Amino acid sequence: MQRSIATVSVSGTLPEKLNAIAAAGFDGVEIFENDLLYYPGSPADVRQMCADLGLTITLFQPFRDFEGMSRQQFAANLERARRKFDLMQQLGCDKMLLCSNVSPQTSSSFDLQVSDLAEIAALAQQFAIEVGYEALAWGTHVNRFRDAWARVKAVDSPALGIVLDSFHILARGDRLGAMEDIPVEKITFLQLADAPLMKMDVLEWSRHFRCFPGQGELPLAEFARDLTAKGYRGPWSLEIFNDGFRAFPTAPTAKDGYRSLLWLEEQTRKRLPESDAPLFSSAPLARYDGVEFIEFAASEDDACALGAALRPLGFAQAGEHRSKKVELWRNGGANVIINHQPHSWADNFYQRHGVSLCAQAWRVKGAAQLLKRAQDYGYPLWQEAHGPDERELPAICAPDGSLIYLIESAGEEGWHADFHLQPTPNKDFTGIDHLALGLPEGSRDNWVMFFRSVFGFELDSEYSLPDPYGLVRSQVLHSPCRTIRLPLNMSQSRDTQIARSVASYQGSGLQHVAFAANDLLTTVTRLEAQGMQPLAVPANYYDDLLARYGESGGLLATLPALQALYERDDRGNAFLHIYTPPFREGRFFFEIVERKGDYQQYGASNAAVRLAAMQTHQ
Amino acid sequence: MQRSIATVSVSGTLPEKLNAIAAAGFDGVEIFENDLLYYPGSPADVRQMCADLGLTITLFQPFRDFEGMSRQQFAANLERARRKFDLMQQLGCDKMLLCSNVSPQTSSSFDLQVSDLAEIAALAQQFAIEVGYEALAWGTHVNRFRDAWARVKAVDSPALGIVLDSFHILARGDRLGAMEDIPVEKITFLQLADAPLMKMDVLEWSRHFRCFPGQGELPLAEFARDLTAKGYRGPWSLEIFNDGFRAFPTAPTAKDGYRSLLWLEEQTRKRLPESDAPLFSSAPLARYDGVEFIEFAASEDDACALGAALRPLGFAQAGEHRSKKVELWRNGGANVIINHQPHSWADNFYQRHGVSLCAQAWRVKGAAQLLKRAQDYGYPLWQEAHGPDERELPAICAPDGSLIYLIESAGEEGWHADFHLQPTPNKDFTGIDHLALGLPEGSRDNWVMFFRSVFGFELDSEYSLPDPYGLVRSQVLHSPCRTIRLPLNMSQSRDTQIARSVASYQGSGLQHVAFAANDLLTTVTRLEAQGMQPLAVPANYYDDLLARYGESGGLLATLPALQALYERDDRGNAFLHIYTPPFREGRFFFEIVERKGDYQQYGASNAAVRLAAMQTHQ
Repeated sequence: MQRSIATVSVSGTLPEKLNAIAAAGFDGVEIFENDLLYYPGSPADVRQMCADLGLTITLFQPFRDFEGMSRQQFAANLERARRKFDLMQQLGCDKMLLCSNVSPQTSSSFDLQVSDLAEIAALAQQFAIEVGYEALAWGTHVNRFRDAWARVKAVDSPALGIVLDSFHILARGDRLGAMEDIPVEKITFLQLADAPLMKMDVLEWSRHFRCFPGQGELPLAEFARDLTAKGYRGPWSLEIFNDGFRAFPTAPTAKDGYRSLLWLEEQTRKRLPESDAPLFSSAPLARYDGVEFIEFAASEDDACALGAALRPLGFAQAGEHRSKKVELWRNGGANVIINHQPHSWADNFYQRHGVSLCAQAWRVKGAAQLLKRAQDYGYPLWQEAHGPDERELPAICAPDGSLIYLIESAGEEGWHADFHLQPTPNKDFTGIDHLALGLPEGSRDNWVMFFRSVFGFELDSEYSLPDPYGLVRSQVLHSPCRTIRLPLNMSQSRDTQIARSVASYQGSGLQHVAFAANDLLTTVTRLEAQGMQPLAVPANYYDDLLARYGESGGLLATLPALQALYERDDRGNAFLHIYTPPFREGRFFFEIVERKGDYQQYGASNAAVRLAAMQTHQ
Repeated sequence: MQRSIATVSVSGTLPEKLNAIAAAGFDGVEIFENDLLYYPGSPADVRQMCADLGLTITLFQPFRDFEGMSRQQFAANLERARRKFDLMQQLGCDKMLLCSNVSPQTSSSFDLQVSDLAEIAALAQQFAIEVGYEALAWGTHVNRFRDAWARVKAVDSPALGIVLDSFHILARGDRLGAMEDIPVEKITFLQLADAPLMKMDVLEWSRHFRCFPGQGELPLAEFARDLTAKGYRGPWSLEIFNDGFRAFPTAPTAKDGYRSLLWLEEQTRKRLPESDAPLFSSAPLARYDGVEFIEFAASEDDACALGAALRPLGFAQAGEHRSKKVELWRNGGANVIINHQPHSWADNFYQRHGVSLCAQAWRVKGAAQLLKRAQDYGYPLWQEAHGPDERELPAICAPDGSLIYLIESAGEEGWHADFHLQPTPNKDFTGIDHLALGLPEGSRDNWVMFFRSVFGFELDSEYSLPDPYGLVRSQVLHSPCRTIRLPLNMSQSRDTQIARSVASYQGSGLQHVAFAANDLLTTVTRLEAQGMQPLAVPANYYDDLLARYGESGGLLATLPALQALYERDDRGNAFLHIYTPPFREGRFFFEIVERKGDYQQYGASNAAVRLAAMQTHQ
């Protein structure tokens, strides 16, 4: 399987791009013409640079608006094609992409289009080049792949085939299906791109918001399945126009691109278990049973302050590590570890990020499979140095360098053996409902690729929340049965609560932890009576709740005294929650939540209240 | 004329918003419901805060999706309305905005919609409140203002009128026209918003990309003219949903909002010179005759380096200031001043921004008018301390604190009197073709408001340029006859050449100066023979020029030796230009340009070559 990517998909100069692409594992590359034009070396130099890196130049795309123009313009276009074929020979590339004409001047005559395409095919044949004709979704007359195929079929030249681009096809709502009438050998090339579903002009969507397969919402797996079932075995090539990728460091983007092809191959293989196609696959996914503990990296002082912040939430110290300065705090099923061991891995994390979430531990069935998957997808593993009688906890490194520990089999508490334990009084929380991460703008796609490829997590649609100082974009990743939920929050503005939190972390980090309560009102009543200070909620909010939901059987009347928030979904399921004020000037905060019935959201209608209250608090 | 703005239009907490709105000059404010809900004080507190600031609460908008729902839901909606009317009485606001229903569940029955609207009108009347019904552009059944009017007319209640929102009307392509059938007293309220023309879903466009009148491309002036001609004399209120405004500091946004109303009033008055409407107007616009000089703030060292950078471009020192360390450099009609006078205004600018453009001088007919306009629009003027026999040059402060000097009457060179002059040898340049400014993301709108309101500059459409490390957005402001041209460049990515230049300036500043040559090839041939080093252009670029334009009579063959770039527009007008490598690691650079025929652009197709070459150079 040849894996290829267009140079336009990553940032940097041409040598930077090619080096990162080769290092990521690709063996093919589409040279985007501008990258060649801006490079201060000859086409032969580029050919040599690619050869030295083990990269085949799979495709070149030198111009547009070829067919159906005035005869004077067409003569110029053909002369231009001749020059570009000559250049391609120097470049050592034998496939040229020709997009359907988008000019308003192009003729609607099928016959003229066909005769123009026949001319370029005849010329290409002299240069031993194959032209692939692709229907752009916004082409003037040719904008669906079947339009392109009709013309390629009519030309009937060995030097003219069709290029299939998943974006142009899926964005128009088309599907490949069986394609009985298109011989597989007429498929010159395959370009792959995903995208989030967006209501906007398709050209703008395509030019700015494409992403790697798996990062978006188009049915890429079905697309690749149909092509593979058809017998297509040519290159799979990524062609991504994305404003974020253009601005993000080159190497991690190229790596994610490669992973996205592995992911797509694995999805395809799942759908075609009998196929002989040489598709990548890794170990099966694990089953997830929730978050067993979270771990903070802290200094001695921070550890003390964190304990003081947890105590009003009913947490008590449940254990001390046998050999390290590591404390276990607990309330019912919620475990929080505070690690302030000097010269440890956590200390190192602390030096870089300050007091922050350095690890989370998940209960899984199939830890070994996940470790294999992480390795296959090129993510590093981690094994902490440990004492002779202490447990080994295998871990996978997340994109920000924090760890995800894997604890095999639900209910096993073997990791407790490392601690001198003592009983704790409270059982308020059943566990950790969700961990919200604050991400620097631009790193969202790295995280999505990580959780989708290694763990098979699913992605909800994105939504926006208003902070007083800018909009916050939020998108939830969750395990298939939602036992692990990870909202990702991103802010373009630098003045929002989330942006300031991310900046203070020097990278990504925890924005908040939500502890799950079975009976929030009782728990919070007791905790507040014992001194817990929730984040203050404006009285106007409660008046509006009554206006929005009616009296709701008196429940709403109990909320103001507790500063609790409420949301109800369309099906009548409800969400109760409270927030704490932020720890250390906005680094992170805690939430207590209760999901009533089958409520599956995160109280988004209350997020803006919280964001404003955080500002007021400060 | 009551000037009002919705609190959603600016960033911050409610008190921050109200203070900035009052300080900007508004006398009315629409309270956006969320701002009230998130405020930890009562509605009566908000009423008092507004009263103390001299602000009338002009409108409240508490809920949506009212009419045509199931009868059970309608009963709940009516109860909700009752609660909100009660709240509005506490708030002291007697006008409520009701948007047309966007729910897919709402009934298409005209009669049901009318009877529901009649019920809320009857209820409103009990509270002495007037409801204004507005057609959202994406309303399920009511999405044009004439749809809304048909229902309001049918209800025929003194407590129900129509709200006109320029965005919803103009975005749908509708125009107000004469509106004979809508009595002016049935227009409850007027909301004003502009927007750039964008091909996208109208809801997304409305929620994220609105801007103040004059910053966008909708025909706001004709809209306001039609309403004023109709006799509307109620409040003009800005309701802007803009991601950038949400994240930008509160006070400058509020100020620009106020200016945008003044600008719109002035545009309206121009179109209705006979009207008795109390519309703002200022002095007439000036006529512009080009840039007389530009001035750099520099240290002693920088001054020396700048001179060394100008000399290869044929500049020579033409004068020294009589009393200050200020040098005049000149080549033909292009004048560059280097100001390194200690403890001066320029020195102060230098301390804040480093070596940078601190002023530009324009030749104008009507300087006094412009000074009056600047004052009327709330921009500060500046008058430098000067020696007893020296010229006074009046100046206006631009948004970054740099100055725009106004030199009355073309051809007058009175400012020369301050210099000991000496002749200079070269006449390569006719003047300054354009000044490109690099702006921090988010400050574009401040600059647009400044140049449009005070100077009457026009705005071309925005386009994107690819830098190897991110996209750059570019938009040109120019005087009506294009004698002064100011491309504005902005980058969201922090790694592009422009972003690094902006960051190194601690704010906005010059990205490049383009000197206009009459005969670029001759000039550049001579300058390069004398040692000028242009920015190196890749050979592949020239091969592509031949492919794109054909031989072009041999002209293209002369370009590679000079490292000159070429662009031709659709009408056959051409642009020749060269760039210098950047001064001081990317702070700014120089360009030499020749416009052939009626060429009016900036060589955008070559900008990416330049951006890549800059990266290669570094």
